[in-house]
Amino acid sequence: MNQSALARSWVEHANGHGDFPLQNLPLGIFSRKDQAPRCGVAIGDAILDLEAVLAAGLFDGQVRAAVEATRGGTLNAFFALGRGARVALRERLLELLGEHSEHQAALKPLLHAASECQLHLPARIGDYTDFYVGIEHAKNVGKLFRPDNPLLPNYKYVPIGYHGRASTIRPSGTDVRRPKGQTLPAGQNEPSFGPSARLDYELELGIWIGQGNDMGDSIPVAEAAEHIAGFCLLNDWSARDIQAWEYQPLGPFLSKSFISTISPWVVTAEALEPFRCAQPARPEGDPQPLAYLLDKRDQAGGAFDIELEVLLLTERMCEQNLPAHRLTLSNTLSMYWTVAQMVAHHSVNGCQLQPGDLFGSGTLSGAQPGQFGSLLEITQGGKEPVELASGEVRKFLEDGDEIILRARCKRDGVASIGFGECRGKILAAH
Amino acid sequence: MNQSALARSWVEHANGHGDFPLQNLPLGIFSRKDQAPRCGVAIGDAILDLEAVLAAGLFDGQVRAAVEATRGGTLNAFFALGRGARVALRERLLELLGEHSEHQAALKPLLHAASECQLHLPARIGDYTDFYVGIEHAKNVGKLFRPDNPLLPNYKYVPIGYHGRASTIRPSGTDVRRPKGQTLPAGQNEPSFGPSARLDYELELGIWIGQGNDMGDSIPVAEAAEHIAGFCLLNDWSARDIQAWEYQPLGPFLSKSFISTISPWVVTAEALEPFRCAQPARPEGDPQPLAYLLDKRDQAGGAFDIELEVLLLTERMCEQNLPAHRLTLSNTLSMYWTVAQMVAHHSVNGCQLQPGDLFGSGTLSGAQPGQFGSLLEITQGGKEPVELASGEVRKFLEDGDEIILRARCKRDGVASIGFGECRGKILAAH
Repeated sequence: MNQSALARSWVEHANGHGDFPLQNLPLGIFSRKDQAPRCGVAIGDAILDLEAVLAAGLFDGQVRAAVEATRGGTLNAFFALGRGARVALRERLLELLGEHSEHQAALKPLLHAASECQLHLPARIGDYTDFYVGIEHAKNVGKLFRPDNPLLPNYKYVPIGYHGRASTIRPSGTDVRRPKGQTLPAGQNEPSFGPSARLDYELELGIWIGQGNDMGDSIPVAEAAEHIAGFCLLNDWSARDIQAWEYQPLGPFLSKSFISTISPWVVTAEALEPFRCAQPARPEGDPQPLAYLLDKRDQAGGAFDIELEVLLLTERMCEQNLPAHRLTLSNTLSMYWTVAQMVAHHSVNGCQLQPGDLFGSGTLSGAQPGQFGSLLEITQGGKEPVELASGEVRKFLEDGDEIILRARCKRDGVASIGFGECRGKILAAH
Repeated sequence: MNQSALARSWVEHANGHGDFPLQNLPLGIFSRKDQAPRCGVAIGDAILDLEAVLAAGLFDGQVRAAVEATRGGTLNAFFALGRGARVALRERLLELLGEHSEHQAALKPLLHAASECQLHLPARIGDYTDFYVGIEHAKNVGKLFRPDNPLLPNYKYVPIGYHGRASTIRPSGTDVRRPKGQTLPAGQNEPSFGPSARLDYELELGIWIGQGNDMGDSIPVAEAAEHIAGFCLLNDWSARDIQAWEYQPLGPFLSKSFISTISPWVVTAEALEPFRCAQPARPEGDPQPLAYLLDKRDQAGGAFDIELEVLLLTERMCEQNLPAHRLTLSNTLSMYWTVAQMVAHHSVNGCQLQPGDLFGSGTLSGAQPGQFGSLLEITQGGKEPVELASGEVRKFLEDGDEIILRARCKRDGVASIGFGECRGKILAAH
C-alpha cells in the first residue's frame, strides 16, 4: 500500500504546498454547471468525480458500495456506513491517485478544475450542536459578560454545549446578510430594533458525525472514534449586541441563527491521524474528568494539532491590493475536551446522534493576543479597535468585510494538509 | 359547503364527545401492520386512509396534488404547499365525511379503527425551537432558580426561545428512558454521575411550521399565519438536576435532549379558527411590543383558548384500578406572545424556517396552584410532594409513572375538538 506519509500523486499540483496532497483526500459534494451535485474528492487544485469513477468501473466491493451511498448528492448514507467503508475508499483512492497508478489515462478526464466547480454542503445536517470547549475563549468572554465570574463552576466538569440552528448552515462563499434584532443600547432600559452594530466571527472546528446511536444508548469515549466521520472549519457568525440582550436565561438564539458558514470539504479522521497528539495536561488543581469522560487512549492521542488562522479583507484593502490582515493564529490544542469526550457527553443521556449531524467546537482562542478567535476578544468588546494597513480600523465587522478561515496540519516527515477555506462576506442589512 | 359549526358525520363515533368530530379533521401519518406509513385523517375513533381515497379517485385538482404530496410518509411536502392546499383538502374531507356524503359506501372500507393503527411522527423535523412564552411558568421557575430575579429584564420584550434537539422527538406512546448525567448534589462542590433523580414533565403547545422563508428574509406578524400549518401537544421532559448544573451559560442541553414527546395528530390552523381570541391584555405597566412584533389583527385574534390537562398514572394506581391523577389544568391563554409573534421573532434576523420545523410554546402554567405545568412548580422544587389516591407521593417522576397530556377546545354553539393524547411512561435508567 502506498499510504506513505510522503507519497506523491500523478496530479502534479497535489505535490506542492497546497491543502490537498495525496495524504488528505477530503470528500465533498460538488457540481459543475447544469449538473446535479455529486461526490468528489479534492486532489491538488482539482476535484475527482467519484460518481464518474464508479461509472468507469474502477470501484469494487465495499468501495463500490461506499461510493454508491453518496448518490443523491449528500454524504449522509456514506457517513452511516462508518469507518470501514471510509478507510476502504481512502485506500483505493491512494492507489488510483498515487504516482504509480495504472489508471491515470482513465482518470484524467474525470478530474475537474476546482475553480470551475461549485461546492455544496456535504451532508443534510440533522442537528447541529455547538460546544464551548475552547477554554481560553470561555475565560476571555466570561470576563466581558461576567467580570466577577469568568469561568463558571461547571466548566471543568461539563463539556458545555448547546443546540444550534441547522437550517442556516451554508458552505464557504455564501454571503452573510447583517441581521436585525433587538439590542439594549448602553445606558438604556428599553431595547431598540435595527441592524446589529456588533457583528463578529467565531473560529471553530466542525466535527461531522458518522455512524449514529439509537435513542437511549450512549457512546463511550473509547468508541467515539467509530462515530466521527471527519472535520471542517466553522465560522459561527455572532451578533454580540443581540446576544447580550437575548441570551438569558436560555442561551444564544437569534444572535447566531442567521447563518453559520463551514468549509465544504470533509477532512477525514484518517487524514488527521498523523496530527493526533496527547490531550494537553490539565493545569495543576483542575479536577479529573468524571469516569464516563475518561479514557487512557483518548488522553494519550485524542487531541489534534491543527493550526487555525483567521484573515480579514475589507473592500478598501481589495481596492488597494493589500493582502488580507491576519486577525487570529490559533490551534486546536486549546480544546479543553477532546472530540471523543464531546461525543460521549452528548450521548450519555441517551440522546440520539445521527449521520450528518454537525458539532462545533466553540471558539478556539489561544491565551495570548494574536490568538483570540473573535473580535469580541481581540477588541475587548469594542474598546480596542484593530488597525489595518488600509488606514481603517475595526471594532466589529462592517458591510463589505470578508472573513476567511484556514487550517493547516504540519509535522516533520509527514505531508502537510489543509482544510480549504471557509469564507463569508458581509452584506448590508435588508 | 357543510362546514357548519355543528355539522355531523356519517362516521357515528365522530358525533359524540370525542376529540375528533367532523370539525377537527387532524392529519397524521399512520400505519397498519406490515404497511408503509401513510397519511390519514382522524374521524371519531377511526382513521381514513387518504392514500386509499386518492387511489379510489375521490380527490381532484388541488386536493389530489395535496394528498400526493403526503406520499413517502411525511407531511413536509404537504406543509410546504401552504394554506391553500390545506383548506382545499379540508373542504373536500368535510364533503366526503359529512352526513350527506354520497361516498359513504366507497369510503367505509378505507376507514380503520385507530386502536389498530400505529401513529408516527407526522413530519421529518428539520429544526425544533422551544420558546418560553408561558409567563406564569417563567415567573414560577425564575423564583426557584433566581429568587432575587424571577423575570429577567428582557422577558417582556423578547419572545425568549432556544434551539432544541430534533433527533429525539417521538410520537405519543414512546417510552421514556430515565437519563443519566452530571448533577451537583446539595451541599457539594463536585458533581456526581448517575440517573436523574428529578425527572419532570413540561406541558407545552407544539406548533408545526408550514411554508418556510428564504434565509435572509423575515416573516412579518401579519403574514405569519401563512406559515403555520397546525398544532400538537408537546411534553418537554426535563431532568431538573442535570439542568440546574449544566444550563449556565448556554442554556439547557442534555437535561432535555433525551426525548421530547408529541401528540401525533396535526390539528390544523383551520380547525382551531373558532377558538381564536384576543391576546390577553398586558398588565398595567407592561411595555408595548416593539413594532416588528405588533399587529392589530394579531392582537385582536391571535391567541387561542385551548384547555390543557396533565394526568399522572402510576403503576400502583393501575394495579388498584384508580383513575389517573390530574396534575395540571391550564390554558393556552397564559401565553405572553402569540404564535404569530413567535414566527416573526424567530425569522426577524433572517433565520430560515422550513416546512416541518416544530416550535414548542414553553411550559404553559396558570397563575394558581392546580394550573402549574411541571412538577418543579407544583412541588416547589421537590419541597411539597403531591399526594395520590394510591397512598403514594411524588416529588418528581418515578420509574413506571406515565404522564398523559390532553387538550380540549370548547365554545358555545361550536363542536368541541381535542388533540388526542400525548403519553409517555418512564423506564428505569440503563
